[in-house]
Amino acid sequence: MTNSFGKIFRMTTFGESHGPAIGVVIDGCPPGILLDIEEINQQLSFRSPGKSLYTSPRKEEDRVEILSGVFEGKTTGAPIAILIRNKDADSNQYSLLKDVYRPGHANFTYLQKYGIFDYRGGGRASARETAARVAAGCVAKKFLISLNIDCVAYIEEIGGIGLPEINRNNLQQIRKQTYSSPIFCPCENTSVRMMEKFQADDSLGGIVSCIAHVPPCLGEPVYGKLEALLAFAMLSIPASKGFEIGKGFEAARMFGSEHNDPFEIEEGKIGCRQNYAGGTLGGISTGEPLYFRVAFKPTSSIKKGQQTVTIAGENTILKLPETARHDPCVAIRAVPVVEAMTALVLADAYLMHLNVKCFA
Amino acid sequence: MTNSFGKIFRMTTFGESHGPAIGVVIDGCPPGILLDIEEINQQLSFRSPGKSLYTSPRKEEDRVEILSGVFEGKTTGAPIAILIRNKDADSNQYSLLKDVYRPGHANFTYLQKYGIFDYRGGGRASARETAARVAAGCVAKKFLISLNIDCVAYIEEIGGIGLPEINRNNLQQIRKQTYSSPIFCPCENTSVRMMEKFQADDSLGGIVSCIAHVPPCLGEPVYGKLEALLAFAMLSIPASKGFEIGKGFEAARMFGSEHNDPFEIEEGKIGCRQNYAGGTLGGISTGEPLYFRVAFKPTSSIKKGQQTVTIAGENTILKLPETARHDPCVAIRAVPVVEAMTALVLADAYLMHLNVKCFA
Amino acid sequence: MTNSFGKIFRMTTFGESHGPAIGVVIDGCPPGILLDIEEINQQLSFRSPGKSLYTSPRKEEDRVEILSGVFEGKTTGAPIAILIRNKDADSNQYSLLKDVYRPGHANFTYLQKYGIFDYRGGGRASARETAARVAAGCVAKKFLISLNIDCVAYIEEIGGIGLPEINRNNLQQIRKQTYSSPIFCPCENTSVRMMEKFQADDSLGGIVSCIAHVPPCLGEPVYGKLEALLAFAMLSIPASKGFEIGKGFEAARMFGSEHNDPFEIEEGKIGCRQNYAGGTLGGISTGEPLYFRVAFKPTSSIKKGQQTVTIAGENTILKLPETARHDPCVAIRAVPVVEAMTALVLADAYLMHLNVKCFA
Amino acid sequence: MTNSFGKIFRMTTFGESHGPAIGVVIDGCPPGILLDIEEINQQLSFRSPGKSLYTSPRKEEDRVEILSGVFEGKTTGAPIAILIRNKDADSNQYSLLKDVYRPGHANFTYLQKYGIFDYRGGGRASARETAARVAAGCVAKKFLISLNIDCVAYIEEIGGIGLPEINRNNLQQIRKQTYSSPIFCPCENTSVRMMEKFQADDSLGGIVSCIAHVPPCLGEPVYGKLEALLAFAMLSIPASKGFEIGKGFEAARMFGSEHNDPFEIEEGKIGCRQNYAGGTLGGISTGEPLYFRVAFKPTSSIKKGQQTVTIAGENTILKLPETARHDPCVAIRAVPVVEAMTALVLADAYLMHLNVKCFA
Repeated sequence: MTNSFGKIFRMTTFGESHGPAIGVVIDGCPPGILLDIEEINQQLSFRSPGKSLYTSPRKEEDRVEILSGVFEGKTTGAPIAILIRNKDADSNQYSLLKDVYRPGHANFTYLQKYGIFDYRGGGRASARETAARVAAGCVAKKFLISLNIDCVAYIEEIGGIGLPEINRNNLQQIRKQTYSSPIFCPCENTSVRMMEKFQADDSLGGIVSCIAHVPPCLGEPVYGKLEALLAFAMLSIPASKGFEIGKGFEAARMFGSEHNDPFEIEEGKIGCRQNYAGGTLGGISTGEPLYFRVAFKPTSSIKKGQQTVTIAGENTILKLPETARHDPCVAIRAVPVVEAMTALVLADAYLMHLNVKCFA
Repeated sequence: MTNSFGKIFRMTTFGESHGPAIGVVIDGCPPGILLDIEEINQQLSFRSPGKSLYTSPRKEEDRVEILSGVFEGKTTGAPIAILIRNKDADSNQYSLLKDVYRPGHANFTYLQKYGIFDYRGGGRASARETAARVAAGCVAKKFLISLNIDCVAYIEEIGGIGLPEINRNNLQQIRKQTYSSPIFCPCENTSVRMMEKFQADDSLGGIVSCIAHVPPCLGEPVYGKLEALLAFAMLSIPASKGFEIGKGFEAARMFGSEHNDPFEIEEGKIGCRQNYAGGTLGGISTGEPLYFRVAFKPTSSIKKGQQTVTIAGENTILKLPETARHDPCVAIRAVPVVEAMTALVLADAYLMHLNVKCFA
Repeated sequence: MTNSFGKIFRMTTFGESHGPAIGVVIDGCPPGILLDIEEINQQLSFRSPGKSLYTSPRKEEDRVEILSGVFEGKTTGAPIAILIRNKDADSNQYSLLKDVYRPGHANFTYLQKYGIFDYRGGGRASARETAARVAAGCVAKKFLISLNIDCVAYIEEIGGIGLPEINRNNLQQIRKQTYSSPIFCPCENTSVRMMEKFQADDSLGGIVSCIAHVPPCLGEPVYGKLEALLAFAMLSIPASKGFEIGKGFEAARMFGSEHNDPFEIEEGKIGCRQNYAGGTLGGISTGEPLYFRVAFKPTSSIKKGQQTVTIAGENTILKLPETARHDPCVAIRAVPVVEAMTALVLADAYLMHLNVKCFA
Repeated sequence: MTNSFGKIFRMTTFGESHGPAIGVVIDGCPPGILLDIEEINQQLSFRSPGKSLYTSPRKEEDRVEILSGVFEGKTTGAPIAILIRNKDADSNQYSLLKDVYRPGHANFTYLQKYGIFDYRGGGRASARETAARVAAGCVAKKFLISLNIDCVAYIEEIGGIGLPEINRNNLQQIRKQTYSSPIFCPCENTSVRMMEKFQADDSLGGIVSCIAHVPPCLGEPVYGKLEALLAFAMLSIPASKGFEIGKGFEAARMFGSEHNDPFEIEEGKIGCRQNYAGGTLGGISTGEPLYFRVAFKPTSSIKKGQQTVTIAGENTILKLPETARHDPCVAIRAVPVVEAMTALVLADAYLMHLNVKCFA
């Protein structure tokens, strides 16, 4: 039950990084949504390692197979099962990891919890699982497009280099700039400066931002608040360490008279354009752009030697070989995952809202 | 379904700030837990407005009534219903709020979503609902004590004044210091400096920290990660804007070689005492102290005049009268709520883990 | 989590037969539904013991208090909490039951499971809990009326005396006849013959039927089939032992050529008027009347002496005193409960269907 | 969300009868359970059409692929995904069904609900989906064996021919006899008499019984009653029309003094061996054998001509060709499905009970 996400638009993911396949079953997707398998393949290529110099060179060339729920190119209302076969599972290079606790990794906690030690690529804790999320996110996005809801994620900060202020009103432009950058940062200059920070034997943390254009009324009171659902979604992504919406932690240093967004009326429409709140009030969308940020720790696997302990309980130094896959900054690959999870939250929030929308 | 929280240890809250009562039903609490109604009353007094100069002077003197699930002082396994009657509902002072969108408040979004405008104290969006969480949290804590699990929340920062580094190993001491401070800050000097920042007509944001001592193995992979459950819990609290675990957003500016917690062996026990991770790896507790921070925006209701719009669509200035209740910093009252929500997450995580623990 | 029922229109009940109160929290009820507290009180009076010679003479005069979720007589979308105080809890008469396993009762299994022996009126296993279901069912019915959905339950058989064939098209008439009968049997003659079967010191089983008029398309495939949801609802009622829809067990003795309902077209509308299926195909409503039957065992508490065992493990004879409450046939009191549970299933099924209805 | 079953031990099925594959994802299976893929294949062969003269001759030779959750032959605690490719999807023979509502089938209701008409083998409403249940049921059974819990289903009645009284204490013997019979009836003589009832151009209904040996304490109060969970599970099986536990509908014709099972003490153990209740009291298992019966309607597809209507709204006669697949009695193929669903309910009930068992 912990491998499912969402209440009505609900995905269940399965598969380990070094098993035969990973995949996702999406239950609750409305019928009649057009699905294009090549769009899913393309989205997967964005998070796929091996894409650029700056992400881990595992050549997966993920291609999905849709097993159910789609008939003549359209969703039918039946569960949509999507399968992604694993390739290139070179377990050999994991042999040196067989007997050691890897700093920053989950093999320590998984072994304690399950009594099973999968020394290969991390099992369910592997970032590989996020490919299934991205595939499901594509389906969610196709549904959202039909509702005029859109979202885009991008790199906001790497190694202390931050992105200049961005105009949150033009998502198409942000998307174009983001996907032109090898590190998904929608500013060419900043991208270059960030990449200069990359280290051959060490890794960097980073911050991913996401903006969504949503209608008012999404989100539910109390334990269905939109920001709570997003926070849950984001902290479920491997390596994420923090979430903030609107002014976030900065709000904690402000006065109420500064932070409160004044309501204004413009051309008959009431809004709060300052939008320090980040697009919600009381957990429900205001109609202003929704925006939030997610902190990612540096990639745990690095080539620099690290103090650790073997399973047998001996002190040792873990040092990945020069040939090992290396992800200089895990936040980069997280960008399409943040976007996918956002789409999944919004699709579910939309369907949850029908309960009220159809009667209020 | 959005008024329930938790999977196995599950609470459902109900009630509005100005209705006859609020309350909570707790389902899934194991049998045999000793419950003392006076402990619940005491915990409620901590979040209750009117307690000190520094929180809103609504005299509620909340006292709970346990309606079910307890027999001869012990839980029976049946659902525990706890009722808290509302008193002192002086609706008069809300009359000036009847026709206006209140900046930072949920009345704008609730009216849009539900078509109903409860101009009185905020309905379900009111912080009043958190009293039910605190009552449920007390029950969770009694269960946790029997498992040797403990947690404590406190004020970390107000108005830019931060708490010095704290020793996370002695929760009893932190608790004692926290509840000696009128603003729940476990350092007398810092408390004084924070209080000097308070404004008569404006409000301040703040940061609440929480530390928990938990055994290894709590939390589930993927969509049951402990930090995701905590992030959801925290962002469901009114006025919260951000969550971070361990080094949080600071981790985004670190190198992997710095951030990765080295495993060490000490007296035969393997741990990662640096604990920048904040007590989990891969979403599962390591056995090191769990710690995280929650950002709260400044209280929305202030006495300073604010630009806003009436429901009729006219520009206006909203200015609360001098006699209005005033909360200089909503983070203070959030302290027992953060602690309660943490206890609820941990109780549920423990029960979720039985599924593995009894077989691994 | 086992004290909740429904997915979107979801009730959580609480309370024991001899505690201070029982109640229900309804989450997910759409806003804007008119609620009349006196209608709820009236429905409760139907299931209330003491109503007639033919049901157990416990004078409860249940009156509900609505604690939340209703503003100016209308639901607001917030959770609706309804409280029913317990009165007349004369525990004395239970003292002889203190040390003995009661045949047909749950005190044996509850003691084994929970290690707690509530010798008073049955705790959560008591039929008292069904008052909360009836109250919630009233709210569901008010919602259903606005959708032109209706349902009525009645006694079909007691002590081997069955009701003649009934016209399933006029629910108003069935309701009128049902509630004119002291035993909820919509045929005066049959009522009389059933009542002649009643025994002073023994009890009888019975069958409750229910008919509902629902639009097509309610129910979901696979694990959301309308008949599966109804079967679950009915078997959750104390003392129920069986459920059948349409021809039910009789269908198991028919040929396909007999049982299959032919499709016909009449005035441009396609239907299957034979309706041996009972109103669904593949778990989804056809638009024909939904009908099903629920078997109830005889009341477990009887005045005749019964062989049993004390908790100390001695053989004994249990014989209720002449003054004990006596329910000659528990199926009678189950009638409003079957109706309430049906209304709850249909309200939830309607809301579940929005997910498809709004897009197909 | 309607394609999932169970709370903790939870399966999600996917796939249509004429798509590329069907499958199931099992979440919440404890780690360390030995799984043998050939046992699953064998169980599938039991429900597989084409197995005998008496079931529909679709040659599927189902073979499963385990995609995840199993490492070195044991479950790991990760979700177990099982894939079954569809073969032999001869859509040609469905062409005559393209334009017509099929009596007893779900194509009428699916078309109304989803606006999509899958004229091929029934989509999600097809009995094909039950193969995924059987595969998941195998996993549940392996878990149950380790807990000393067992269950067996068999044909109780076909075409009015019933099975003589059976000894419910020896499940191994019942299983052996059941699986020796071409129609899963554990009595050779009765099997022969049942088969004589089969019709070349018509179909028969039937009743499936199931017996389970379970420890006391399984099942939860109120909305977690074991019989309610079983009733839901059984009515979710295609073509099922009724469920009864213990004496079931017969109980409705009994006196309390007959039906109540006396408690007895034998060799220090308290039980109620008459067991008319069918193994539960108040929804919780007593430790006596659990037994219940499920009614199945006759197979809807028959070769005899049937009155129906085309989608265009014309009256017509539907007559399947002589070469069409023909299932003389759908109850036969339902036997392994009933057994699988029972195993799934019991596995989940066991895990649900941990919440109490570990503390009471």
